[in-house]
Amino acid sequence: MCMTCNTLLDRLIAEEILVETGIDGLYGRSGKFEDVLLRFDALISRFGDDQKADVIRFPPGMNRALFEKSGYLKSFPDLAGTVHSFAGNDKDHASLLETLEGGGDWTAGQKATDIVLAPAACYPLYPVVARKGKLPAQGRVYDLNSYCFRREPSKDPARMQMFRMREYVRMGTPDEVMAFRQSWMDRGQELIASVGLPVAIDVANDPFFGRAGRMLSNNQRDQNLKFELLVPVTSTEKPTACLSFNYHQDHFGKTWGLTTADGEVAHTACVGFGLERVALALFAHHGLDTGSWPAGVRKVLWG
Amino acid sequence: MCMTCNTLLDRLIAEEILVETGIDGLYGRSGKFEDVLLRFDALISRFGDDQKADVIRFPPGMNRALFEKSGYLKSFPDLAGTVHSFAGNDKDHASLLETLEGGGDWTAGQKATDIVLAPAACYPLYPVVARKGKLPAQGRVYDLNSYCFRREPSKDPARMQMFRMREYVRMGTPDEVMAFRQSWMDRGQELIASVGLPVAIDVANDPFFGRAGRMLSNNQRDQNLKFELLVPVTSTEKPTACLSFNYHQDHFGKTWGLTTADGEVAHTACVGFGLERVALALFAHHGLDTGSWPAGVRKVLWG
Repeated sequence: MCMTCNTLLDRLIAEEILVETGIDGLYGRSGKFEDVLLRFDALISRFGDDQKADVIRFPPGMNRALFEKSGYLKSFPDLAGTVHSFAGNDKDHASLLETLEGGGDWTAGQKATDIVLAPAACYPLYPVVARKGKLPAQGRVYDLNSYCFRREPSKDPARMQMFRMREYVRMGTPDEVMAFRQSWMDRGQELIASVGLPVAIDVANDPFFGRAGRMLSNNQRDQNLKFELLVPVTSTEKPTACLSFNYHQDHFGKTWGLTTADGEVAHTACVGFGLERVALALFAHHGLDTGSWPAGVRKVLWG
Repeated sequence: MCMTCNTLLDRLIAEEILVETGIDGLYGRSGKFEDVLLRFDALISRFGDDQKADVIRFPPGMNRALFEKSGYLKSFPDLAGTVHSFAGNDKDHASLLETLEGGGDWTAGQKATDIVLAPAACYPLYPVVARKGKLPAQGRVYDLNSYCFRREPSKDPARMQMFRMREYVRMGTPDEVMAFRQSWMDRGQELIASVGLPVAIDVANDPFFGRAGRMLSNNQRDQNLKFELLVPVTSTEKPTACLSFNYHQDHFGKTWGLTTADGEVAHTACVGFGLERVALALFAHHGLDTGSWPAGVRKVLWG
């Protein structure tokens, strides 16, 4: 398969599997794309059925005050998206429309609301769980899926600005959460292999911002805090992180006052699935016609 | 059922069917809530199967330039949400963190991006279809579903800031789109009655902004441009619009240069389903324990 002579994005748009919106990283999904994504999402549920996880589905936005407290702005200020709105009167409205008509910047009058777009499915979760009091013995597992936003416009369809992230999040003792992460690193590879995709695991390299970010990046790598499951999507040299396996140590536990049944600061870990990325990997490897995908892959996804 | 002695929202939160985030109109959805919503969504698909609609799923955000051109800001400037981001350097980042630490307003430095939250599922659609050239003979029908945003914080759970809207959109001649709308006004009532909810249809009264809005509002009502299917959710006196039936005349056709096979300006109409609102109506009428909902309703939703 030629991955460079004609980009995957061009082919997906030509076949109307993705729909252009005029913004890099913002696409409509056809019924065909959505079907693949939802079938893969259901496959994750089958692999995670034994987790007896509590299901929560958060909307694409979260409480700004909680977002600020999470620490995200220290690491990735450039990726965050704040939601702003108009709070004026009739006169301000007339002026807004006049500015818009004249081709000026009407957004100057928009004021920040108390809502920020969620950068990952699990950010809204921790304060919600902490509010419930101590974790029960054996801790908890949550099952999440939400639309996330990251401000990184790109022609690489695997780097969307708005995308869905499925997650299982484990909260408990260090041993419990490390065992959870290891188990999902194994399952994740099995899961991806079951749909006919090549698998590699590597230490992650998050794009921490600026000079201070280099230290955070080194720390993440040196302490093996995050692993990624990589699949070639638009490049074989630079494969795409389709799943990630994160150990947060006591970061969220301390931030939110999350404690185990014994009163210790809880540790947390999560496995995240980039649903659009996996769907794109499937189209890239098996072709744009889902009807002619390998029988084994079709059986796993469509039964 | 007592709807005033203890609010529906309080009961849904106490039962963990919805999850508080600290922001009015922004809630996590439990697995139970989500299951009801998805079952109802699937029921819509069964009712709409004969439409042979093209399926597109847009993300929660859309191209700001297209949003500006749509005319939304004339009618509802206060409901729109623009997405802003940080575009500074290391020094700006240090200053942002310092402001945040000191409890100041760090959002002052956020700049508007080219993305706006979608106010309705169909707004991103029209320019996409217009780009494809003339409509085919008999026009087109689209099937949409996306997360939408409206800035109207409220304690009424049926007035969420972020919610999902399912839509069928018809594009064609005036006769075609009017017949479509009438057919969905009939189907909509049948659909809602099939899940055991009381149904009433009325002319809509959209919250157009300010003084100029009164004229738009009168025009909408006088010309019967929008009808709503109302179901009591949190109030019997002020029932909630769960479905709406909209005739846009040639507004989007003219705005986007959308033409019929004959080269006439296309007319458009849509039916919109407020998925969270219908789910809430089901909980309000049949109780919080889905297992004890009427057998007929369970059969329609779960088969």
